[in-house]
Amino acid sequence: MFEPTPGDKFTFGLWTVGWQARDPFGDATRPPLDPVESVHRLAELGAYGVTFHDDDLLAVEPDRDKAIAAFRKALDETGLKVPMATTNLFTHPVFKDGAFTSNDRDIRRYAIRKVMRNLDLASELGAETYVFWGGREGAESDGAKDVRVALDRFREAIDLLAEYVTDKGYGIRFALEPKPNEPRGDILLPTIGHALAFIGSLEHADMVGLNPEVGHEQMAGMNFVHGIAQALWHGKLFHIDLNGQHGPKYDQDLVFGHGDLKSAFFLVDLLENGGYEGPRHFDYKPSRTEDISGVWASAAANMRTYLILKERARAFRADPEVQEALAASRTDQLAVPTLGPGETYEHLAEDDFDVEAAGQRAYHYERLDQLAVEHILGAR
Amino acid sequence: MFEPTPGDKFTFGLWTVGWQARDPFGDATRPPLDPVESVHRLAELGAYGVTFHDDDLLAVEPDRDKAIAAFRKALDETGLKVPMATTNLFTHPVFKDGAFTSNDRDIRRYAIRKVMRNLDLASELGAETYVFWGGREGAESDGAKDVRVALDRFREAIDLLAEYVTDKGYGIRFALEPKPNEPRGDILLPTIGHALAFIGSLEHADMVGLNPEVGHEQMAGMNFVHGIAQALWHGKLFHIDLNGQHGPKYDQDLVFGHGDLKSAFFLVDLLENGGYEGPRHFDYKPSRTEDISGVWASAAANMRTYLILKERARAFRADPEVQEALAASRTDQLAVPTLGPGETYEHLAEDDFDVEAAGQRAYHYERLDQLAVEHILGAR
Amino acid sequence: MFEPTPGDKFTFGLWTVGWQARDPFGDATRPPLDPVESVHRLAELGAYGVTFHDDDLLAVEPDRDKAIAAFRKALDETGLKVPMATTNLFTHPVFKDGAFTSNDRDIRRYAIRKVMRNLDLASELGAETYVFWGGREGAESDGAKDVRVALDRFREAIDLLAEYVTDKGYGIRFALEPKPNEPRGDILLPTIGHALAFIGSLEHADMVGLNPEVGHEQMAGMNFVHGIAQALWHGKLFHIDLNGQHGPKYDQDLVFGHGDLKSAFFLVDLLENGGYEGPRHFDYKPSRTEDISGVWASAAANMRTYLILKERARAFRADPEVQEALAASRTDQLAVPTLGPGETYEHLAEDDFDVEAAGQRAYHYERLDQLAVEHILGAR
Amino acid sequence: MFEPTPGDKFTFGLWTVGWQARDPFGDATRPPLDPVESVHRLAELGAYGVTFHDDDLLAVEPDRDKAIAAFRKALDETGLKVPMATTNLFTHPVFKDGAFTSNDRDIRRYAIRKVMRNLDLASELGAETYVFWGGREGAESDGAKDVRVALDRFREAIDLLAEYVTDKGYGIRFALEPKPNEPRGDILLPTIGHALAFIGSLEHADMVGLNPEVGHEQMAGMNFVHGIAQALWHGKLFHIDLNGQHGPKYDQDLVFGHGDLKSAFFLVDLLENGGYEGPRHFDYKPSRTEDISGVWASAAANMRTYLILKERARAFRADPEVQEALAASRTDQLAVPTLGPGETYEHLAEDDFDVEAAGQRAYHYERLDQLAVEHILGAR
Repeated sequence: MFEPTPGDKFTFGLWTVGWQARDPFGDATRPPLDPVESVHRLAELGAYGVTFHDDDLLAVEPDRDKAIAAFRKALDETGLKVPMATTNLFTHPVFKDGAFTSNDRDIRRYAIRKVMRNLDLASELGAETYVFWGGREGAESDGAKDVRVALDRFREAIDLLAEYVTDKGYGIRFALEPKPNEPRGDILLPTIGHALAFIGSLEHADMVGLNPEVGHEQMAGMNFVHGIAQALWHGKLFHIDLNGQHGPKYDQDLVFGHGDLKSAFFLVDLLENGGYEGPRHFDYKPSRTEDISGVWASAAANMRTYLILKERARAFRADPEVQEALAASRTDQLAVPTLGPGETYEHLAEDDFDVEAAGQRAYHYERLDQLAVEHILGAR
Repeated sequence: MFEPTPGDKFTFGLWTVGWQARDPFGDATRPPLDPVESVHRLAELGAYGVTFHDDDLLAVEPDRDKAIAAFRKALDETGLKVPMATTNLFTHPVFKDGAFTSNDRDIRRYAIRKVMRNLDLASELGAETYVFWGGREGAESDGAKDVRVALDRFREAIDLLAEYVTDKGYGIRFALEPKPNEPRGDILLPTIGHALAFIGSLEHADMVGLNPEVGHEQMAGMNFVHGIAQALWHGKLFHIDLNGQHGPKYDQDLVFGHGDLKSAFFLVDLLENGGYEGPRHFDYKPSRTEDISGVWASAAANMRTYLILKERARAFRADPEVQEALAASRTDQLAVPTLGPGETYEHLAEDDFDVEAAGQRAYHYERLDQLAVEHILGAR
Repeated sequence: MFEPTPGDKFTFGLWTVGWQARDPFGDATRPPLDPVESVHRLAELGAYGVTFHDDDLLAVEPDRDKAIAAFRKALDETGLKVPMATTNLFTHPVFKDGAFTSNDRDIRRYAIRKVMRNLDLASELGAETYVFWGGREGAESDGAKDVRVALDRFREAIDLLAEYVTDKGYGIRFALEPKPNEPRGDILLPTIGHALAFIGSLEHADMVGLNPEVGHEQMAGMNFVHGIAQALWHGKLFHIDLNGQHGPKYDQDLVFGHGDLKSAFFLVDLLENGGYEGPRHFDYKPSRTEDISGVWASAAANMRTYLILKERARAFRADPEVQEALAASRTDQLAVPTLGPGETYEHLAEDDFDVEAAGQRAYHYERLDQLAVEHILGAR
Repeated sequence: MFEPTPGDKFTFGLWTVGWQARDPFGDATRPPLDPVESVHRLAELGAYGVTFHDDDLLAVEPDRDKAIAAFRKALDETGLKVPMATTNLFTHPVFKDGAFTSNDRDIRRYAIRKVMRNLDLASELGAETYVFWGGREGAESDGAKDVRVALDRFREAIDLLAEYVTDKGYGIRFALEPKPNEPRGDILLPTIGHALAFIGSLEHADMVGLNPEVGHEQMAGMNFVHGIAQALWHGKLFHIDLNGQHGPKYDQDLVFGHGDLKSAFFLVDLLENGGYEGPRHFDYKPSRTEDISGVWASAAANMRTYLILKERARAFRADPEVQEALAASRTDQLAVPTLGPGETYEHLAEDDFDVEAAGQRAYHYERLDQLAVEHILGAR
């Protein structure tokens, strides 16, 4: 019943199953994984596609052309798509002060070239979305970086790359991925909100949206469902990274649903009913305690949990008692404009309103929340 | 040396010194404070102005006209200005599900009327900024509120009120005040970023900016200096709330500088050198352990610490060793556009770049940070 | 199937359903609730007992004797037990600097008297546990309170009260309730760990244990299940407060299971299988948006979710695949002492151990975690 | 004036200045550093000693005997002491499920052997403290590890090693280092409090204390000064790790004072006046943006800031206005026992106490806090 198929549009980063499990205090616990193997295994598990950083393709084959050829072949054999690609602008020491916002101009230029090169490949492979995670754009000390000037450079880079994609006629949109911190003490564009505001300042704002990640927002204590709703409201949910996190701490990249399960339920509910049509992309890290069998088990777990939650959300919305509870909470009334047709603010003065009586009305949200919890638990 | 004068543009909310120190677990420890007394005492302490919620004026005098008359008289006697005003849309039970985004349409209409009425007074008193803190616009459960629809209503209300102010010819701009949570589990527009993005969607976006508060951003673990820098970059720092906070926990509203002192230093440095011309507004709560003498002592402390930090920031920027250290970190290079005059992305391919050599360059930020710390400590 | 009965040992604080929903930014949204009504309604809902602060009894009847008589009558009529009682040492302004650790000696003495008086009543009503939540024992500034001296006074008070209970022959044990902050900036004994350590220093350590609260630990980002496990390991889980919280922010006191649902599952699993025999006590606050019908709905929700999770935990432990997965993770091997019978550290040198081979072993925790998630979701 | 000397007892871990700046998202930015060079440079900078993990000595010389000989020679040449040593039980994949609490018994035995071997060396080098940081003792999922059983194994290991040290006659005490998370999702003994409680359960509790780290407690939002005060109160502050952190996020290991500066001031005040006689040990990481010159600059910065804060604390305590303010806050009254000589709880009933009048007393903490801030700023 909860078996994934390509129609579910589940995708995985090559860097997720391919993570060698090196962490700040420990060496790798797994050997490099051939992207070709990842493609085949993910296809067998029911995935729709894979995504990659430029450098991910070179995990076991250092020759770029050979690596690309092998990857293409695997895609052809399996039918897996590449709906998204991105650039590694963080691993090499050259990016230690940032890529687009490094103090060093030649490094900024190198970073842009690195993206351009991989945009060419992304386009060839049919990617429709190109993600920018600016993990090194930031600072540890407030004296080290003038954020206003850094945002000038950030904008310059994105504007330039948007122009490049437009000139080339690539059918690619950009998606910025916010994160509050780690690996930098503070990262620029730390949340969905900050990135949305930045996008509004871009020359090609229309082709730039977001790739929010569950854990990144939760690291700032943000409500991820609220964030996704605001991104949708602005028409900017271009892509999404699904995983799990236990609140403000290091970036955990847990399997989807293995963090805040209730939030995951409402997220699936929103994605399935809120008009999002893009890939359901998992950006997680199989725990360092796992071998390759655990890697594939965890990959499958992401999809399975999503499908269970999708079914739970369907049942929740279909439940007559839920519908009655929503009505009792008057949630439908929020969609009614505050001014009536033809009204202006002047009409407000005519209202006959008893503030004390209105203050006694209840909203019955506890009941609604409990109905959701029971649906999550499969207890209704 | 650190004595405040009106020229420093320090302002206080009536609700700060007037806070009766009721908290979620305890009764008031101080009696109501007459706004007239607040005006006189703040003037004596060197403040430039006061700000207020509509309801604040009624602290000891229930008759609105009389209360306003007494308040005006005190302003006239002292010369204190009222650069900002705001509305209480959170204390009364009627707002328990929100004001502009309550499910109940008549409550939304009442909220708008309440703002309109106080806008009239604010204009009369010469206020240039009107603040909107939507503390009750939010939810405890993700099932309780469709954030997209709530944002529609929020936008409708702000658009309508902007139209009102424009029609009336009031010289008033709006400033939204973000907060992540408390009193709601999650509040709409939780950070500077989310509010900036929202503003971009408004009909009268030009007249709407931000009133960020130190503690509110720090409750989400956000770097406040980064947030203010982004707000300035968007041209949206219309007003500011200064106070202190110790990271993610309940809203502490400490005296300015009594929380993260290093961040306070860089904030003052940015405000003084970043082009912000508005009031330095303190939105803090004198501790519940204080009597009225402690209230005034804490009010004075806010201003004194600001002035000391201002002097520290001046000395920091004037220190030749700091200037040399900034140059060694190449912070000036970030202001140089990544593309040269006349260049396009095509020119990037011509760069001769040694990525390994560039990767070995250092940025010397530790030295710069230490210079800042020593300036804060008055040790240079 | 999930209908509570007294045998489930569910208890509620009178202050939970009786909370008038006053918060730091808003007035009460509900009228006072007669404790007599609470007793009757909770009995009807299937609760086992109620608990109270001394002051809770006076919610609607100011005469203490009459209030107690009415309360007793309701207990007799319903059969509800009073397994726990506690003291309000936080609402009155007199406690603004603490109760047992106030700088003022006469206030410390008053606090102790207040506890003694209610201990007499608690004993009469058959309470077996007396809770101490030192919400006002703390500080906002590190200069304000010498924590070492404050702990001396805290210990003096608990020692004295333990002596009182012992002398009187009351069959009562004490349970300390840790909390990291709110209403004080930092509260003494902020976590389960700090309180356990403190208990070890007491004269009557044997009769003092813990009353940990879900939300209090989660406000510090602590894993509540780990904390309860350590409390059990020390033999100190005397009582427990069940509710919900969304990580580090203000104290939310959500319905049990309405916060971190996965953690709630493992908590129930541990309580049911870990030897805890005491009451399942709910210390939550019905949302401010509710009227009295929502209060009772939320009270019932706490119990129902607990029972569902109890059933999920039973099925999880009984599932052969779970048992197989636990064995594959070698969780049983952790119970085998590291030294064999008769071994000393000298025998360790004789081991034949291949560190590289051992480093390649996997623990398969991802699979185990997914099995738990699927059981929580009722999907197995 | 702020030049460190050996008399200041400043010490550094070899792993601090020797950190190659590899992080979860980036490769090393600095080459390995020869411990011999570290010893010489730290001596030149005025340090008192160095500390090490067993594996640290092998940074550039793989032969253990040769590495130790070179290290000893450098110590002899410089006069640097080795007051503390510790074991690397976290880098190798073999420890991915823990060391003392790994499910695999042979790994637990290997871990104990690894410690024993380095204890021999530590003793030879004159170390008086041996630190245990159990960074891998923990779990990502609550189903993966029974914490009670894990604590049994943890206790077994510490008991065994204490017995070893006692038998050998080494003059070494143990110091446990708590941390809430990272690299594990949740680490056992997450705070000072949990570790103190655990120590109380040990067979050789007298020889086991704590090595708390600034950043580790602040990652859980804990007040570090409060934690150190409680550790001192229990007589368990055996050693300390000084660094900086910006609240709940990944482990930053900033230079001391580069995080929460106000807390650093009160910490130095407590250490200097609270009876702590051990080393002032810096456990920080020079930022990834630094080269070796930045490493030494940052090492010097730690010591310089400590000395400035020490001078600020001295002046704070000597300031007559501070003394007067402390008296006005009645902080001295907290040291007076709540019961007078010869009193029992029965005497409390005789008090004549006006609760309303007492409730109006103020504590004047705002003034005290401001005096501290001004001393930190060097403005008095």
